[in-house]
Amino acid sequence: MYDRIKGFRDFYPEEMQARRQVTDTIETVARQYGFREIGTPALERAEMYADKSGDEILEELYAFEDKGGRKLALTPELTPTVARMVVAKQQELSKPIKWMSTRPFWRYEEPQQGRFREFYQTNVDIFGSADPAADAEILAVAADGLTELGLSSEDFDFKVSHRDILGGLLETFGDVNTTAAIRAVDKRAKIDEGQYFELLTDAGLSDSQAREFDELLTTPADSLDELVDFAGTDRVEQAVENLENVLAATEDFGVRKHCTVSLTTARGLDYYTGVVFECFDSTGEVSRAVFGGGRYDTLIEGFGGQPTPAVGFAPGHATLSLLCQRAGVWPEESVTTDYYVLQVGDTRPTAARIARDLRAGGNIVEADIAGRSFGAQLDYADSINADLVVIVGERDLENGEVTLKDMTSGDQKSVPVDAFPGESKSPTFAEF
Amino acid sequence: MYDRIKGFRDFYPEEMQARRQVTDTIETVARQYGFREIGTPALERAEMYADKSGDEILEELYAFEDKGGRKLALTPELTPTVARMVVAKQQELSKPIKWMSTRPFWRYEEPQQGRFREFYQTNVDIFGSADPAADAEILAVAADGLTELGLSSEDFDFKVSHRDILGGLLETFGDVNTTAAIRAVDKRAKIDEGQYFELLTDAGLSDSQAREFDELLTTPADSLDELVDFAGTDRVEQAVENLENVLAATEDFGVRKHCTVSLTTARGLDYYTGVVFECFDSTGEVSRAVFGGGRYDTLIEGFGGQPTPAVGFAPGHATLSLLCQRAGVWPEESVTTDYYVLQVGDTRPTAARIARDLRAGGNIVEADIAGRSFGAQLDYADSINADLVVIVGERDLENGEVTLKDMTSGDQKSVPVDAFPGESKSPTFAEF
Repeated sequence: MYDRIKGFRDFYPEEMQARRQVTDTIETVARQYGFREIGTPALERAEMYADKSGDEILEELYAFEDKGGRKLALTPELTPTVARMVVAKQQELSKPIKWMSTRPFWRYEEPQQGRFREFYQTNVDIFGSADPAADAEILAVAADGLTELGLSSEDFDFKVSHRDILGGLLETFGDVNTTAAIRAVDKRAKIDEGQYFELLTDAGLSDSQAREFDELLTTPADSLDELVDFAGTDRVEQAVENLENVLAATEDFGVRKHCTVSLTTARGLDYYTGVVFECFDSTGEVSRAVFGGGRYDTLIEGFGGQPTPAVGFAPGHATLSLLCQRAGVWPEESVTTDYYVLQVGDTRPTAARIARDLRAGGNIVEADIAGRSFGAQLDYADSINADLVVIVGERDLENGEVTLKDMTSGDQKSVPVDAFPGESKSPTFAEF
Repeated sequence: MYDRIKGFRDFYPEEMQARRQVTDTIETVARQYGFREIGTPALERAEMYADKSGDEILEELYAFEDKGGRKLALTPELTPTVARMVVAKQQELSKPIKWMSTRPFWRYEEPQQGRFREFYQTNVDIFGSADPAADAEILAVAADGLTELGLSSEDFDFKVSHRDILGGLLETFGDVNTTAAIRAVDKRAKIDEGQYFELLTDAGLSDSQAREFDELLTTPADSLDELVDFAGTDRVEQAVENLENVLAATEDFGVRKHCTVSLTTARGLDYYTGVVFECFDSTGEVSRAVFGGGRYDTLIEGFGGQPTPAVGFAPGHATLSLLCQRAGVWPEESVTTDYYVLQVGDTRPTAARIARDLRAGGNIVEADIAGRSFGAQLDYADSINADLVVIVGERDLENGEVTLKDMTSGDQKSVPVDAFPGESKSPTFAEF
């Protein structure tokens, strides 16, 4: 009767179970690094987005006026919100501030594979450290999260770049619109060569400068000194040193093997200032960047706060699931049940006692709540993938027994009702 | 620079930690009963709410038109959404369907204590069973959830009522607007007596009928037969029997002690059809209902599905936190950290190795990512409530040692670096 809105999704239990497992894995890794969960609003003032990016950004958002005349927008990303929260309690918060959260965001864009109008991200950010170890920790959390999901360095690769190397190189070509040129670099792999060079010349580079700049971007990791020599500026020297320090720290943190220097990586958002990176499927089968992150040292100040360096990343769960599925590590989409307590006849007090005892052991336990027949209950137990069925029948109970049925083998045995579940938290068929 | 929107909240890590603990506790209990998590959209078509409740309901919602001309609303509750999802896959889903989820909802209402424009609920629902055991299981999950939070029967009380008893009694008075009269009962405790009786007479009862009806509502649990005698209808007889069967099942499920029959409880929403209940603070200090639930057997059919009985409840986390705080069981609002690895001098490779080993044991571990002094690191470790600080210093390392500092006692001791953390997953100060 009512249809779901275009670009929005319903997650039924089987799929949700897999998604929950992936989210928990990423969050657990972040928690172990000391990132603390925060909770944030779904709505913010529309100006928070329009002030930075112009009113045209509102066309890509769910923006509207509320009954009180406030111009609001459903949050399209977390960064402005966390920036607002950092500024609001700047004095009280001990630095570095390490925050994370998983939640939906919303953009009014045309849906395509791996892109929805409602999409889920886990945001992981550090505020208050300009040290290369902070950038490296972000790369380490990202890499460990993927590794915990079962992905290896054969599956994914972080293409690591540096905004200040790009900006510093562009500066040497004279009067260039750096923002526009960096946006062009971000589009390099997505558009054809002619369009790409046109964007670079639109940004103020001559044809030959554009070619020269593009060639510089392919400088290998072990020859970054050539860029320093080319530019001859402190800015590029320091940026290269910073990138090398970040990579050295990833070595100590055990994740250097997941990182490749790639100056043709730029990230789309304007607010990045230092190291940026994008995660790619090593096989190329998932063709888009899976997610990315980087350093944004000026954003907090732009939000009216004290200068506060920041670095973070945010895996989107839609593209992440594409990578996991490609690599064969997406969790099985099915529900699991430890025990089904099957009730035959007027045995509810005993069946309920057994179910409570099993739940007290931390197990997932279902019992009949629909007054159904033996066969219907067994079918249901099968549909929820119950491992073990405990049959509580009137006649068995007269003999002080219940019947255990192993749903994998189909084997059955009688056990004394008083001994079940006994001391064991999660009793198995074999135990009895 | 930007302010938060009225009625919306930011949750910083300390408060979020407590909220997460409470949410996890409720969800874990529901999972142990076999409720499966689902994921649902934040936006639905506005008609989904307006069709049932009239266009005026949209005044209380965040409703707007998107760029495609769709009339949308931020979901004010979950029930219509899950009804839509059940209808969409009615044939495939094995019954009973047992679903749960925790997420925010939005209403454009005047904020007050325990009520926000963005509010969080855990929804727990059963579809496809009309059996009293299903109603009782909902009461059991609700009661067990609160008990797991540390609340006892001294702290909370479920006031249990039955819509069909109310409706059946009203029917005996002739031509009464049952919906309006039940809404009046729902307001009974919140408005003055004169207003209440006026609402009842507006619904079609005479003054004396209103008094008589109100007196019937105070019938004690052990005298419900008097209502059957009074009405003399099958409807009231069956409704009373149903309520008694539900209470008998709560006995088997171990939660009868949390339930009190209270026919003056009605629940505000129109779609309830059978047993309804509200959870109250036993001390009355939290004066509003903490949350409620009940049976809604006609909603799925109203959404175009096959007749599907349903029952559920939905604790709102704002009022739940008021109850927990009143009872002194609200979790401590602080962050916890197992280890801080303090790095002095050029010792990052060893410090990073130790941090990784400790994280592999499942611990929360922070290390320096800001290049700070010994004292600044120790202050930070203190601010994040680190239990144990592992000091990795250049001179200690020359002797093959690190220093452990117990942050509670302040005691320190040296341990061989190669032996730390050793085999222990979560090594303690006392172990070394």
